[in-house]
Amino acid sequence: MTTTTADYTWPSELAELRDVVAAFRERHAGEAAVRTLAETNTPLDSRTWQIMAEQLGLAGLTVPEELGGAGAGYEFLAVAMEELGKSLLPSPLLATTALAIGTLMQAGDASARERLVPALAAGQITGTLGYTGADGHWEPARKPQVRATRNGDGWRLDGTVHHVLDGASADLVLVVADTDEGPSVFAAEGPLPGLVRSPMATLDGTRSQARLDFHDVPATAVGVLGAAAPTVEAVLTRAAVLLAAEQVGGAQYCLDIAVTYAGTRTQFGRVIGSYQAIKHKCVDMYLEIESARAAVYYAASCLTVNSADAEPAASIAKTLASAAFDRASADSIQIHGGIGFTWEHSAHLYFRRAISTRALFGDPRRHHEVVATSLLDRTTRSDASTSPPESRRVQ
Amino acid sequence: MTTTTADYTWPSELAELRDVVAAFRERHAGEAAVRTLAETNTPLDSRTWQIMAEQLGLAGLTVPEELGGAGAGYEFLAVAMEELGKSLLPSPLLATTALAIGTLMQAGDASARERLVPALAAGQITGTLGYTGADGHWEPARKPQVRATRNGDGWRLDGTVHHVLDGASADLVLVVADTDEGPSVFAAEGPLPGLVRSPMATLDGTRSQARLDFHDVPATAVGVLGAAAPTVEAVLTRAAVLLAAEQVGGAQYCLDIAVTYAGTRTQFGRVIGSYQAIKHKCVDMYLEIESARAAVYYAASCLTVNSADAEPAASIAKTLASAAFDRASADSIQIHGGIGFTWEHSAHLYFRRAISTRALFGDPRRHHEVVATSLLDRTTRSDASTSPPESRRVQ
Repeated sequence: MTTTTADYTWPSELAELRDVVAAFRERHAGEAAVRTLAETNTPLDSRTWQIMAEQLGLAGLTVPEELGGAGAGYEFLAVAMEELGKSLLPSPLLATTALAIGTLMQAGDASARERLVPALAAGQITGTLGYTGADGHWEPARKPQVRATRNGDGWRLDGTVHHVLDGASADLVLVVADTDEGPSVFAAEGPLPGLVRSPMATLDGTRSQARLDFHDVPATAVGVLGAAAPTVEAVLTRAAVLLAAEQVGGAQYCLDIAVTYAGTRTQFGRVIGSYQAIKHKCVDMYLEIESARAAVYYAASCLTVNSADAEPAASIAKTLASAAFDRASADSIQIHGGIGFTWEHSAHLYFRRAISTRALFGDPRRHHEVVATSLLDRTTRSDASTSPPESRRVQ
Repeated sequence: MTTTTADYTWPSELAELRDVVAAFRERHAGEAAVRTLAETNTPLDSRTWQIMAEQLGLAGLTVPEELGGAGAGYEFLAVAMEELGKSLLPSPLLATTALAIGTLMQAGDASARERLVPALAAGQITGTLGYTGADGHWEPARKPQVRATRNGDGWRLDGTVHHVLDGASADLVLVVADTDEGPSVFAAEGPLPGLVRSPMATLDGTRSQARLDFHDVPATAVGVLGAAAPTVEAVLTRAAVLLAAEQVGGAQYCLDIAVTYAGTRTQFGRVIGSYQAIKHKCVDMYLEIESARAAVYYAASCLTVNSADAEPAASIAKTLASAAFDRASADSIQIHGGIGFTWEHSAHLYFRRAISTRALFGDPRRHHEVVATSLLDRTTRSDASTSPPESRRVQ
């Protein structure tokens, strides 16, 4: 046996992408800029979005080269999301990549893909998907409140969909609508006079959501009629991993500012970071973040290679990242204790982001259920005490 | 950019080793055999140890080829420890590899290494290291209770060392003893008439410990006089990772039997695994185990490549594995609820193993401190909010 080691190498291209996105974040996503956008509910200016999408190529990272993308693995988009998650910059990236491009890539409709993905990948248009009910959740068995009816060669949409990410500003609106064949995906593009977009007031002002009311809006069908449910499930699995990466970035930022503060702020003549209670709080945050990050990049690698383990891996990543962000954002506020309004305010923005992301793309209950199913089903198939699954051995 | 992914491939040699050790475990480490050995405080018979050490080559896995080993990375020994950890077979493997070979490889003494390591690697002799005080803990600043005095070209040992793993049976006894130059490592080998070995009654009967009383016992110095502290620290870092791997195996076994039981045992006409409370308990166990396993193999890879991150990575692995084993062994007992004495008994053995391993090779407080130091020091060196360490990004 020669010296062989499991390969934990972080490809240098990933490290380079991280540096590039970090530099962008420092330049364009400072605290003041983020707060102004969030408080005025303004979408990101098109120049900054062009830098993200065109110069950095973030929108097309996972898009195949023949559709104008970089053809990279999900780890790359996850790295970008993690770095951007350290700021709370409102940007069309999550909705455009995870929802719009994600849906078009999963719907199995080559002509829709070829018509729409290149413009999304290049950042020329932004996109989103409306799929949730009034409560913000997705239930495959629930009838959509938007109805699609045939109109010559095309379709018309009527009804309402809630909690659409970037719904107020997205150029391409994909939506799950009911048909005689069951819930199906439709695309509404171009000028849409019959579409009323109403921004929703939500807890997390840094991520805009809208209610969309369709009044006889022209649309095209995407994919097979009646196949919305499996498409949305596949989209949510991928979206959960990307959001989990963003959560890890947010949690890391909370830890970073807490540790920096604990290392400089003195009380009773000692830096507060030397007190056991503060120190151990930081360590606990750190351990949760490291575990979540490992789970995120394992899940991303499963998505890249289309592993059968991708779905439970995505749910594990989302569960751990939600928990890590919850704790980090709450404990960071505690550690900052009496520092006053300015810091308080910033920490509270992350706390709100943590709460809002916990419910997005599957709440903890849903992801817990996915993990439970994979765990318990697997065991009844074979004797798990002697042959547990090999595929989850290494993250 | 071409398609590039982080490489999470599990080398096939590791999977093969896992299968081989699992087959050994099923054949030689059944519940009845383990319980008999534990209850009678009998060391493993030499034939079974020969299978482990010679046929499977486990003792020499990480030993360089020029010293008769396989020259493999720590991941390999971790895999073996994880698989063996699923049973509680009392065996000389942990003490011989983590302590005896570990100390000889870290002490920087080529002649001691060449004289002693090949026999240990081949399983011809077993070994251990006595380094803790009466409380079972190691404190670098504490004066050893064994004293070494010069005797011609050699040394004589007098005094007592407690909680020596396999101390009652190990062929080679390494021990930290005090000298005028400070605490130093010594080797006592061959027939040792002045050495009184007294087995200690401990919580975990599956891992034997002994008190060793030295009365004018001949010994040789290993490494530089006064250098025991850094040697023991380096040994404990490596030992903590191997023990954490064993803990992950133990925790996995507890989860496996809990899931199997939950999937077959019915109550009120349903398998108990379909009840939310049971299901979520299993999922929580699973998430902790997966996180711990990822941390273990990341730490093992750090040891293999001598990464600067090895020490905090080892402490993270030990912390997470201890927590995962604690929870899994306790929750497994709960899930088994009313199953009666036989299962209860087995589950309780794992529960005791979990408690005993938590304190071994550094208790949670010590490892927490290592992580805290690395976390807080790192941040005061640079602005962590913009450039957190790259090396811990992927597990």
